[in-house]
Amino acid sequence: MNQALAFIGLGIMGKPMARNLMNAGYELHVYARHPEKARDLIDAGARLHNSIAGCVRSAVGTLTMLGAPDDVEGVYFGRGGLMDSARPGTFLIDMTTSSPALAERIFSEGAKRGLRALDAPVTGGAKGAAEGTLSFLVGGAAADFERCRPLFAAMGAKADFMGPAGRGQHAKAANQILVAGTLSGICESFAYARRAGLDLNRLFGLVSSGSAASRQLDALGPKIISGDDSPTFFVKYLVKDLRIAAEEARNAGLSLDVLEAALRNCLDVTARGMGDLGTQALIHHYEK
Amino acid sequence: MNQALAFIGLGIMGKPMARNLMNAGYELHVYARHPEKARDLIDAGARLHNSIAGCVRSAVGTLTMLGAPDDVEGVYFGRGGLMDSARPGTFLIDMTTSSPALAERIFSEGAKRGLRALDAPVTGGAKGAAEGTLSFLVGGAAADFERCRPLFAAMGAKADFMGPAGRGQHAKAANQILVAGTLSGICESFAYARRAGLDLNRLFGLVSSGSAASRQLDALGPKIISGDDSPTFFVKYLVKDLRIAAEEARNAGLSLDVLEAALRNCLDVTARGMGDLGTQALIHHYEK
Repeated sequence: MNQALAFIGLGIMGKPMARNLMNAGYELHVYARHPEKARDLIDAGARLHNSIAGCVRSAVGTLTMLGAPDDVEGVYFGRGGLMDSARPGTFLIDMTTSSPALAERIFSEGAKRGLRALDAPVTGGAKGAAEGTLSFLVGGAAADFERCRPLFAAMGAKADFMGPAGRGQHAKAANQILVAGTLSGICESFAYARRAGLDLNRLFGLVSSGSAASRQLDALGPKIISGDDSPTFFVKYLVKDLRIAAEEARNAGLSLDVLEAALRNCLDVTARGMGDLGTQALIHHYEK
Repeated sequence: MNQALAFIGLGIMGKPMARNLMNAGYELHVYARHPEKARDLIDAGARLHNSIAGCVRSAVGTLTMLGAPDDVEGVYFGRGGLMDSARPGTFLIDMTTSSPALAERIFSEGAKRGLRALDAPVTGGAKGAAEGTLSFLVGGAAADFERCRPLFAAMGAKADFMGPAGRGQHAKAANQILVAGTLSGICESFAYARRAGLDLNRLFGLVSSGSAASRQLDALGPKIISGDDSPTFFVKYLVKDLRIAAEEARNAGLSLDVLEAALRNCLDVTARGMGDLGTQALIHHYEK
């Protein structure tokens, strides 16, 4: 693989991922609607383009890290987007947490143009992006996954092939369904405990080492106790992810009522102006 | 504290707890409606009584480990029960997962008779009972808790004082609310993943080390993948615990819809004849 890559989506996740690719020696071409957001990357040697076509012209692969499925649809299928611009034989790697159906469409429409698409959403958050310890859940063609391993290795600690196009997104959805249940249990438990007059620190000390132990409880329990709503992962992003999972589940004929409740409750918190808080702010749904 | 104790409730949890008290040197008096269930304890030196009154006559403290709040109510408030029989000045320690309101009533009615009641439900399950590694969540009078520490130490690894009567039960309810959310997330995630055609082993390898990691996922994930419904904790017992938590939450004016969904789904599984399976059988609710 040649060293020139295109990268689109320099947000809180994308920018440190792009930087890790540069640190690994790749020549980075970026497209940004707001160039000031890419300033430090440009200062470090990334080349800024004012069109997607310009950005991908010399690249052997394009990586995207966008907000929501609508953004992905725009960048891939919009006028002047990747389907119009990317060179045949190159890779398209969408790392956005997006819809499995859209990933399948990118794969099949890309294939008609000789493009090799992978859906490769991540877990590990902004911290994992900065530290290069993300995990990639990858769907697409196995041979393409193998050839892109060096890219994943530059940005993360782990990459697993989950099957045909869309399966990376399905695996991420499965992860977020787990997160939704555990997070809801944490917030309902603390709301209950507070109402019952329990000493939350003492309760946390007990439950966090027993059968109810979880990574999220360790991370969010102390924040809930101290009233710290600062984000590790934004409520609004969880809402986006759970919407995708819930829609896929419904389409598959599954009735996942805990997922649906978690989505409804996170939407309530968002509607009350708390979308930019951390996911532990879900507790405010129960305390109104 | 003198060495004679009464113990009522020699089930899957109670019997090994009673044995650990005997191993610690206490003289054990047991009351069992089905004496054959106590045979090995009697062979080991426990004294069998055919009435509660006889069982508690020489005891400085009575420990109960029963099935459900109705059983607790019968043993404490029924004719010839503990309120009629226990000697003033002695302890009553209910380790059943039961209702906080009933624990408060036992405390206040007991106090009128000079009895010192503690509610002390446990976490750690049958394994913790056998190995003496249970955690006790204790409500009542702080001085009584302190005086009973040696008993808890004989049966468990940890005992924490949670506040006035009922708070031990409230803390246990808070723990089970956590369990309900996490377990639901696990079962919904695996049901989704299976429907999406994902390799569950590969998915488990990824999610169990990330933000969705939990003790329950570690314990139940492999069982779900291999179709092993064998119990670590019975669905029917979780139903009982979640009923108590849901009722308390409703009485407190809280709307815990994930807890309510988990209870409803576990009841569905129980109604379909799976109450004696492990809690991972909740996945069958989603796969019908």
